[in-house]
Amino acid sequence: MTPLQKLLELIVAPSGPAGREAQRRLDQFTKPPGSLGRLEEMARRLCEITGACPPPLRHPVIFTLAADHGVAAEGVSAYPQVVTAQMVENLLRGGAAVNVLARHVGARVVIADLGVAVPLAPDPGLVSRPIAPGTRRMTSGPAMTRAEAVRAIEVGIELVERERARLDLIGTGEMGIGNTTAASAITAALTGAPVEEVTGRGTGIDPAAVARKAQAVQRAIDVNRPDPSDGLHVLGKLGGFEIAGLVGVILAGAAFRIPVIVDGFIATAAALAAVTIKPETRCSLLAAHRSTEPGHERALAALGLDPYLDLRMRLGEGTGAALCIGLAQAAVKILTEMATFKSAGVSDRL
Amino acid sequence: MTPLQKLLELIVAPSGPAGREAQRRLDQFTKPPGSLGRLEEMARRLCEITGACPPPLRHPVIFTLAADHGVAAEGVSAYPQVVTAQMVENLLRGGAAVNVLARHVGARVVIADLGVAVPLAPDPGLVSRPIAPGTRRMTSGPAMTRAEAVRAIEVGIELVERERARLDLIGTGEMGIGNTTAASAITAALTGAPVEEVTGRGTGIDPAAVARKAQAVQRAIDVNRPDPSDGLHVLGKLGGFEIAGLVGVILAGAAFRIPVIVDGFIATAAALAAVTIKPETRCSLLAAHRSTEPGHERALAALGLDPYLDLRMRLGEGTGAALCIGLAQAAVKILTEMATFKSAGVSDRL
Repeated sequence: MTPLQKLLELIVAPSGPAGREAQRRLDQFTKPPGSLGRLEEMARRLCEITGACPPPLRHPVIFTLAADHGVAAEGVSAYPQVVTAQMVENLLRGGAAVNVLARHVGARVVIADLGVAVPLAPDPGLVSRPIAPGTRRMTSGPAMTRAEAVRAIEVGIELVERERARLDLIGTGEMGIGNTTAASAITAALTGAPVEEVTGRGTGIDPAAVARKAQAVQRAIDVNRPDPSDGLHVLGKLGGFEIAGLVGVILAGAAFRIPVIVDGFIATAAALAAVTIKPETRCSLLAAHRSTEPGHERALAALGLDPYLDLRMRLGEGTGAALCIGLAQAAVKILTEMATFKSAGVSDRL
Repeated sequence: MTPLQKLLELIVAPSGPAGREAQRRLDQFTKPPGSLGRLEEMARRLCEITGACPPPLRHPVIFTLAADHGVAAEGVSAYPQVVTAQMVENLLRGGAAVNVLARHVGARVVIADLGVAVPLAPDPGLVSRPIAPGTRRMTSGPAMTRAEAVRAIEVGIELVERERARLDLIGTGEMGIGNTTAASAITAALTGAPVEEVTGRGTGIDPAAVARKAQAVQRAIDVNRPDPSDGLHVLGKLGGFEIAGLVGVILAGAAFRIPVIVDGFIATAAALAAVTIKPETRCSLLAAHRSTEPGHERALAALGLDPYLDLRMRLGEGTGAALCIGLAQAAVKILTEMATFKSAGVSDRL
């Protein structure tokens, strides 16, 4: 068995009493049953996934993976390709939005180069595992080979394994000029949604560029004929290296029973691919927020996930995941710090 | 002029360059313009309200005011009236949900007795300013006199003044068995909405009790004929002492240019009354979350407020405000910690 096959064997639907134990606790606390709504649901799910009540949540890590995309040459972004490398440097210096929001919730950010086009200077904060200097142009052939897709996934797994001693909650993030185009293509291929419904403004392109982008996505699908039952096939034809890397991060989270907070549209496309590869992965996922990218809704619906936040964000990097980690911490504190009706001497009914 | 009249004179619509300065900063940061969505809007509003960019946000305080309601005798709650006093004791010991969530975001909770029916033991953590041991039954006459309403508002103002040296963000909270009934009546009176549309399950009553509750609300309105153009009139006829106290907290926030994060349905009813008394108060309000109480949507719409969170919560106490304070802190950090395109050497266009 390959390392990936071995990992996939570990992914099973969570079972055990921790979720029920969470519910039992929640119903004893001094509040009307269920009145903390989705915070209670989140607490329960974190217990189910980890198999522990309360779940450990002291070491959240956001994995922000970067790579470039051949399809950027089609004029699908508001920014030049060099911005991917420049933003990785910004991430390493702590000046990007995800750095700020991760610090706010006490999460570390692991930054990895899965295939940035412009060479990056070595940096102790950068995990350098480039598959190639960007994918090939998916409008005229596969973005990558199947072997490259597997290698990128294995890098994602390696990233989680490296951190495992200090990691109990995963957030996913990404950086890559052109990667909403790849996410749109993956989402269309895996959900069967019409391309126009899953293609949006990305970093903020105008309507003419959105039309061009939708045409590029359609051409990529026509040229590559991705097989929607084969997640690796779809990833290879339409993916980005950072997206495939996130598939590995997500699969590793599921294998090790570490809850995975999926960020926005691009991370959700990675989650769709991961769930196509191994359906039980779905049980480990929480959707951080609803992005304004139109394809996000379709991808979330296909995964059966209901996001916790809706702040009209569309930045990526793991920014939505960071905010959602703050909610997860709150949910766990509810589970561990509230008084019960009995301990507080509060009447629990009429 | 009375203290209340003097305070109302101070409330003006915020003006000045701080909001524009926030926008200018946000547009220079390394992200597509507007891509942090409502987090950017919140940062801008906090600057507008305080007149400072960045706004100070080091001392958030949640004001959780408690009182009892004569209308509780109509069987409108799932809990006995004694729970108000029991929950105040729980709040003082730090075991209630708002204590947990306030600690999570580093907010203090100020707990005040505006009129709890059961006598409370003196406690250094309790601000004891009871107007009366609960309101009168609003189904057969006014819940309180106009003078009592003014006194409760003045207590709210006093609470803010006491904390002012260490206070730069206000969250509103409340505790009072029967207070969703009062909030439904206030909301119906001030928005003109049909009683059935603004009356819900509160702490979790069954459909028969909801019908009884709606009848009580309708009777209170029929008996008292509240004047929707006179916030004090509505408060006196239908209010609770804690709700009137929150009106004072909200008016004081507006007067002192301290942003007010309005919690759920009951706090929003207080905000409606405050805005009826002084319309410019609206400019200082942020809506924390969307409660599952059906009347909340109507009250928010009347105020023109769009809540930041939608977690299907319905607990009150200030729990939604606490979570939203976490988002406000994140928004301010975005404003102060992100790199600019220039400082990070990132290309800002194609």
